[in-house]
Amino acid sequence: MTKTAPVMINGFDPAKLASLPERERRLIERRQALLGPSYRLFYEEPVHPVRGEGVWLYDAEDNAYLDVYNNVPSVGHCHPHVAQAVAKQALVLNTHTRYLDENILNYAERLLATFPEEITRVMFTCTGSEAVDLALRVARHYTGGTGIIITENAYHGVTAAAVEISPSLGPNVPLGQHVFTVPAPDPANANGRDVGEVLAEEVEKAIAFMMRHGIRPAAFIADSIFSTDGIFPDPAGFLQKTVDVMHAHGALYIADEVQPGFGRTGTHMWGFERHGIVPDIAVMGKPMGNGIPIAAAVMKAEVQDRFGRDIRYFNTFGANHVSIAAASAVLDVIRDEKLMENAAATGHHMLEGMKRLQQQFACVGEARGAGLFLGLEFVKNRESREPDGALALAVVNGLRRKRILISASSPYGHVLKIRPPLPFKREHADIFLESLAAVLTELA
Amino acid sequence: MTKTAPVMINGFDPAKLASLPERERRLIERRQALLGPSYRLFYEEPVHPVRGEGVWLYDAEDNAYLDVYNNVPSVGHCHPHVAQAVAKQALVLNTHTRYLDENILNYAERLLATFPEEITRVMFTCTGSEAVDLALRVARHYTGGTGIIITENAYHGVTAAAVEISPSLGPNVPLGQHVFTVPAPDPANANGRDVGEVLAEEVEKAIAFMMRHGIRPAAFIADSIFSTDGIFPDPAGFLQKTVDVMHAHGALYIADEVQPGFGRTGTHMWGFERHGIVPDIAVMGKPMGNGIPIAAAVMKAEVQDRFGRDIRYFNTFGANHVSIAAASAVLDVIRDEKLMENAAATGHHMLEGMKRLQQQFACVGEARGAGLFLGLEFVKNRESREPDGALALAVVNGLRRKRILISASSPYGHVLKIRPPLPFKREHADIFLESLAAVLTELA
Repeated sequence: MTKTAPVMINGFDPAKLASLPERERRLIERRQALLGPSYRLFYEEPVHPVRGEGVWLYDAEDNAYLDVYNNVPSVGHCHPHVAQAVAKQALVLNTHTRYLDENILNYAERLLATFPEEITRVMFTCTGSEAVDLALRVARHYTGGTGIIITENAYHGVTAAAVEISPSLGPNVPLGQHVFTVPAPDPANANGRDVGEVLAEEVEKAIAFMMRHGIRPAAFIADSIFSTDGIFPDPAGFLQKTVDVMHAHGALYIADEVQPGFGRTGTHMWGFERHGIVPDIAVMGKPMGNGIPIAAAVMKAEVQDRFGRDIRYFNTFGANHVSIAAASAVLDVIRDEKLMENAAATGHHMLEGMKRLQQQFACVGEARGAGLFLGLEFVKNRESREPDGALALAVVNGLRRKRILISASSPYGHVLKIRPPLPFKREHADIFLESLAAVLTELA
Repeated sequence: MTKTAPVMINGFDPAKLASLPERERRLIERRQALLGPSYRLFYEEPVHPVRGEGVWLYDAEDNAYLDVYNNVPSVGHCHPHVAQAVAKQALVLNTHTRYLDENILNYAERLLATFPEEITRVMFTCTGSEAVDLALRVARHYTGGTGIIITENAYHGVTAAAVEISPSLGPNVPLGQHVFTVPAPDPANANGRDVGEVLAEEVEKAIAFMMRHGIRPAAFIADSIFSTDGIFPDPAGFLQKTVDVMHAHGALYIADEVQPGFGRTGTHMWGFERHGIVPDIAVMGKPMGNGIPIAAAVMKAEVQDRFGRDIRYFNTFGANHVSIAAASAVLDVIRDEKLMENAAATGHHMLEGMKRLQQQFACVGEARGAGLFLGLEFVKNRESREPDGALALAVVNGLRRKRILISASSPYGHVLKIRPPLPFKREHADIFLESLAAVLTELA
């Protein structure tokens, strides 16, 4: 397998500024002046939504954009049940965890009930990054180790500790000195072997390397769908051996559920469940409050006890009443609107359609996914599987011109990252598939 | 000056569980089971509010508690203007910064207009901890240094990088290896010298120490009111020399405005303005959205440019539309209800009353503060200034029995930390002062 240089998928090219309409140009100039160069826009022609509803975003001219990408508004943009819960709570009470409160405990019970029985504790933060950051602190305190193992193009957040385990941020953001990478579990790279066995071997090698250098392992952390690595969900179960290796060395497995969690994979509430494993710590964020900031780390009691005996934790906005109200309403909607069942059904329909495109277009290397977390891989050549990030970028911008919002992932930017809001129906999948076929035909 | 052992002010003592009413006991047991030992409650008899309004919290029996402590609901608990802005926005649009949006830019302009003209950039996060964490990344990237200088009992947040500069979390949370402390600017410890000169000398010594050990300084970070050190606001201007020292060594001054910011000191929107200085970076959080999670780091353009050229930054919930709507409404209320003027006037009235208590009670060492950020120091002996943390704790719990919410700070827990919501009026100050006098009389 030959690989080409990475393609940046997020970067709006400022050289194209002059070609944009006056209003957008002015907004981009203000943005650059006020927010500065760290902030990146999606697409050659950035999108400017002013309203959202369900799986749709709308611009000022009321043009509708089909959202096939955003996993934060997981139960649908501006879902009225969540918005009303927020509106009601904001008028009643909004304080913190140093007073007694029943709402937070009721939600904690509901949330923990969705996890395997070994997971009995929850600590609340505001963002997935904070939850990852806290999970690292807890894992290092519990194990006494410092070494962390991640996949080669992982992304786990934006705090200083989280960027140290996020190689997808690129070479200007160095990994932590006690952070070690293993290749992502890509079956195409397993040379016909069991992908889980290969991963476990790589993890074993990383542990041997760190121990040879006097570093004790603390944890392996991964999202079970390997989102930024290129989306590798299959075969379900392949993570078991890696978890065994970590435990054999007294280290932990942290499930990063920020992306696969809250029912997205359709068959299970949590991504790790597809693998039949139980994490020591699981972190969650993005879809938890449907856009209202709330996140959490759940864990086994013995893991948290050791941390909690020594170290107090207070997160000012963590589990504030308004965020808890939003999170609780999200669980209502997932249940009442049968969004997991929908994710499974629509996801299946989508994957079938994507596989038809694979037959039709030689540039499609593979279609894969679980529920409404799917990847479509573009290659220059099916035999060599050489990634075609430039084509994926052209597809992303081509779909945007058709008002369909999507992005791409992998180290080469060559895999469409398909993770729409969960109320995404068969009819929406068909719009996406037809538009994708049209764009691929145009580009061919 | 002799000092006694620290007194933990936050710890609810589980041994007292049996003495509590059934309902509270049950809630505490559920809390311990679900959230675990890292979570601490305020007061011997924890408070259980179910409703908030203005400067008041109410329990299930509709007993009113005067809030003299919470700085997050800065414009008042559940302020209707903020709650309505949140309710309205949650139904319209709530996305992120990779699409174009006008609301965020309008707010960014409003916020930056409250800063000196050198500060032209803003980066949004969800919590003050994330803002501090980002400020450290930016400062280290800009200067190429790693050394950070803080005061001895500082608190700056809960991410891994923020706890490394938060000695107030206690001995179980080690400081970072490139983190160095200087004594807080306590005029009582200055031996008659200028407190700003003493602080600058200590900072100069810390820089010499780190450079002798091959560590280049990156930043001095402090909240200008030295909240967890025991509240040292005076004399205004004393920080100037320290800022000059940092700049002379190519390092930065980061103003932690999480506590003094957004008008609390009455005379100025930002705490550093009282000192007539301009920070290179300022971080803010708690009161920014009146409880809706939003925080930010603002900075000079040249500081951010160097970071932003190399490193992209995306915070999923940072500057989401709902949080921006809340933050914008907070600025409206500060302006429309003249809350800064109120903070100055009520703060002055409060400080006068506290000084009368100082005359009346020998245990009161000093009353000090700026606007509605005040401290009342308890001592065993006025000559030696020996801190009396046990008395402060008794006062905190005594006031709680009178349904007045307050806490204490300093390494010895001997300084009442007085920072109520900003709509706190003269009549509320009088309730607090009378109750405080009654508690002190009871305890005498």
